[in-house]
Amino acid sequence: MSKVTTGATMSLDGFIADANHGGFEHLFAWYGAGDTEFPTGDPGMTFKVSAASAEHLHALQDRVGVLVCGRRLYDMTNAWDGRHPMDKTTVVLTHQRPDDRPEDDENFVFVTTGIEDAIARAKEIAGDKDVGVNGGEIARQCFDAGLLDEVHVDLVPVFLGSGIPLLGQIKDAPVTLEGPISLTQGSGVTHLGYRVVRK
Amino acid sequence: MSKVTTGATMSLDGFIADANHGGFEHLFAWYGAGDTEFPTGDPGMTFKVSAASAEHLHALQDRVGVLVCGRRLYDMTNAWDGRHPMDKTTVVLTHQRPDDRPEDDENFVFVTTGIEDAIARAKEIAGDKDVGVNGGEIARQCFDAGLLDEVHVDLVPVFLGSGIPLLGQIKDAPVTLEGPISLTQGSGVTHLGYRVVRK
Repeated sequence: MSKVTTGATMSLDGFIADANHGGFEHLFAWYGAGDTEFPTGDPGMTFKVSAASAEHLHALQDRVGVLVCGRRLYDMTNAWDGRHPMDKTTVVLTHQRPDDRPEDDENFVFVTTGIEDAIARAKEIAGDKDVGVNGGEIARQCFDAGLLDEVHVDLVPVFLGSGIPLLGQIKDAPVTLEGPISLTQGSGVTHLGYRVVRK
Repeated sequence: MSKVTTGATMSLDGFIADANHGGFEHLFAWYGAGDTEFPTGDPGMTFKVSAASAEHLHALQDRVGVLVCGRRLYDMTNAWDGRHPMDKTTVVLTHQRPDDRPEDDENFVFVTTGIEDAIARAKEIAGDKDVGVNGGEIARQCFDAGLLDEVHVDLVPVFLGSGIPLLGQIKDAPVTLEGPISLTQGSGVTHLGYRVVRK
């Protein structure tokens, strides 16, 4: 059964980026902290992680069929130079389609009618695979709309002091999740998975 | 060798209390989420935790020789009705001694001359055991003063949305720690320990 999941690398103080939308040299240090190569869809980008993290990433890569992100992340990464490094079709929630990409293709699909429609479209594409939602703000929208099934955190031992929270001010807080339903200890990172409890 | 450690139950979004200094029914749910009794120094307060958490708590109880807290926590808990539930002498950092407790005793020792002196006094009392620093603000002071050796987090799957951060705006952020140096999965809680890297 297809699930809607979100995942992010998070600092020990709960941030997925610093206050300037940076800090990734600290947050993503674990992508270079091991001996096992993990290739991405981008030939110029190969991670070197622990064997445990590599296994975790391979399982994730296999389970996720499509990604969903917001326009902010799409713009910030310059559309990942053409395709998401996880090598998946990416549904982009936006107010307006970008001018330079008139047609949906196997790389990007644009939805302008809200988060429910974006997730519905993503589920169609995913089939029996999972939908991976990326970016704190859009993950929070999913959470608030009751669309999210799992939250995955790659917890890294850095204190950023301030920054962008994983989900931010969720509507129904406090909210308790189930789990961890999965736990993998890597090098410089602890992979934790939690299940959202539907009311 | 005696170490200075801090530990707290922390929400998945990085808070040790909600914005109103509450939320403990969610944060401390794990203290009642198991079958194994863990008695505290307070006869009226016995936790029921998982066997793994009980073992973790017994080791902690054994390792920590003295506690350090700030005046705020001391007042908020009404001096834990006479003695900290971990059944340890507690060094209280305060600007002024409380009027109703003129003498230091085996329950409370008051230090008015700053965090360095509070930790030094605590180390004297602890001998070869560890010093446990409690409360986010005072733990941050320790961290900033280079006095902290380890940070322990009991990570619970709740999103509070906002609240009091574990350490807050630490002076030298971003700061990377080593670890986890310990990891225990309990019921409704993940116990994680990290080592502070001295520069």
